[in-house]
Amino acid sequence: MNSKPVILSGMQPTGQLHLGNYEGALKNWVSLQDKYQMFLCVVDWHALTSDFNDTAPMQDRIFQTAVDYLAAGLDPAKCAIFVQSDVKEHAELHLLLSMIVPTPWLERVPSYKEKVESLGLDSYGFLGYPLLMAADILLYKANAVPVGKDQLPHIELTREVLRRFNALYGPLFPEPEGLMAEFPVIPGIDGRKMSKSYGNDIRLADSEEDTIKKIKKMLTDPQKIRRGDPGRPEICPVFALHKVYNPGLDEIQAGCTSGALGCVDCKMKLAGYLNESLRPLRERRKELVNNKKYVINILEGGAERARQKAGSTMSQVREAMHLKRPDV
Amino acid sequence: MNSKPVILSGMQPTGQLHLGNYEGALKNWVSLQDKYQMFLCVVDWHALTSDFNDTAPMQDRIFQTAVDYLAAGLDPAKCAIFVQSDVKEHAELHLLLSMIVPTPWLERVPSYKEKVESLGLDSYGFLGYPLLMAADILLYKANAVPVGKDQLPHIELTREVLRRFNALYGPLFPEPEGLMAEFPVIPGIDGRKMSKSYGNDIRLADSEEDTIKKIKKMLTDPQKIRRGDPGRPEICPVFALHKVYNPGLDEIQAGCTSGALGCVDCKMKLAGYLNESLRPLRERRKELVNNKKYVINILEGGAERARQKAGSTMSQVREAMHLKRPDV
Repeated sequence: MNSKPVILSGMQPTGQLHLGNYEGALKNWVSLQDKYQMFLCVVDWHALTSDFNDTAPMQDRIFQTAVDYLAAGLDPAKCAIFVQSDVKEHAELHLLLSMIVPTPWLERVPSYKEKVESLGLDSYGFLGYPLLMAADILLYKANAVPVGKDQLPHIELTREVLRRFNALYGPLFPEPEGLMAEFPVIPGIDGRKMSKSYGNDIRLADSEEDTIKKIKKMLTDPQKIRRGDPGRPEICPVFALHKVYNPGLDEIQAGCTSGALGCVDCKMKLAGYLNESLRPLRERRKELVNNKKYVINILEGGAERARQKAGSTMSQVREAMHLKRPDV
Repeated sequence: MNSKPVILSGMQPTGQLHLGNYEGALKNWVSLQDKYQMFLCVVDWHALTSDFNDTAPMQDRIFQTAVDYLAAGLDPAKCAIFVQSDVKEHAELHLLLSMIVPTPWLERVPSYKEKVESLGLDSYGFLGYPLLMAADILLYKANAVPVGKDQLPHIELTREVLRRFNALYGPLFPEPEGLMAEFPVIPGIDGRKMSKSYGNDIRLADSEEDTIKKIKKMLTDPQKIRRGDPGRPEICPVFALHKVYNPGLDEIQAGCTSGALGCVDCKMKLAGYLNESLRPLRERRKELVNNKKYVINILEGGAERARQKAGSTMSQVREAMHLKRPDV
């Protein structure tokens, strides 16, 4: 296992994950787990950068996220699945890296500027968010990090930080590559990007009934008011989901454009395909939720493996920075 | 021991300490060690905020600083003497507190503004310096912190941070009091404040011969050129040191003002008193330097005790912030 290239990735513990998380990250992770040594982290410390005043649900959110990781098919024998705060080395490396990173590097990160304005976040920890991410990546000497386009600046910052470290203290960290993958667009039921904070999400944990209810509420082409009206699939969020879950897309496309297929029937077909596709995952999910101890054991075993790798890196970091006491 | 109020204090590992460090801090610590439970820290991580690109001498500097702590009379049976980076909880608490502290609080700290301008320091870690200090203090739930006037803003920031923590997560931290003490003025041999970076310091580790040489080079009242010229003791750095080390001050004062006492004689008298006063400390110092293992064992024992206290605080912090996994 140790000769495989290393991947580090993670998600904030937002609670139950939705189709967007699944199609945009989890499924991709599952497809990578045979080729890479994977460290998959539930980044609870990152969550504090925005949710520091809403921590009561934290432990349930962590649990639900871990359950979704496992239900999606991540194999704890292949991946170290763990909670960030169980591996204190993330905090130590973050602090050490903070000493060599000019504050303007962090102020220039696009997501910082956006969120300072849109969410009014101004904590020192929020400013350090991408540096904590760099520490996450470097701690495992990751060779690759699966990313969406919006995270490319974070990988770029990580590279700048490690180059500076390597120049100051000697070559220790490899440069991680951003693994870009093509992900399907997953609109929420209101047509915007699916997001828990928009309240427009369909969750892996939803029952089949709830899934049907949510899909029935989905927005469709506003010009198609009743069966018979021709619709425009290319602007319809329901059709966007058909693209992902319906193997027989032509029938929908033809029925919608001709008007022969009404929106209610079209939605019921989608719900059927979606529920069918998620059924095995949801069954595993139910078992996992009822077997809390099993899930927690996996997190603790994952943390143990993560600490081994992180501890070995930190030992090298301390030595390189002359922070290691010599033997007497 | 545990019912005594707690003090946290520390110094950066600048290497061999000088008279200013001794009179301004060490001696005061020694006088407090019976009344308080003391955690005395060599803050190597703090040193990185300015010396990140000069870490090669770090371990020797730490050792020399620890030797001076002990030679000055700090009793490892009474105080936990340790190295900050041996207690990883400092990094963890720093990270957690970073999430609740607005960046402008840190930008407003006077020492930050000064050093950004005078030294050109702009790292993220340097900006977080006073927050790391707050974490140092809060980790031990310190009731008191010995401070000079220039550090009062740091104690004030610590209070603001802990009030915010207590308001968000419940009352956990007591408010530390700044223990102001009156310290004698210790000029360096050029008359400016004694400081290693000015190269004007007399060190505890200096030999008696070196002490004499340094004192011979000291600046005096420029109007007093030869014996016979009347001098002004109140502006003379040599006299300032006589005030600290010479029990018979009147004789010097009278001889200087009348002109009867020449500067060379005056300096030789000072050197005599100073060397006599430091002799026992210097003898202890020599023994300690030759007994490296003994000193390191003290640091490791101190770290062990510090980790016990810090670990107990962090356990409460994690519970208060809902970062602790419940037992299943």
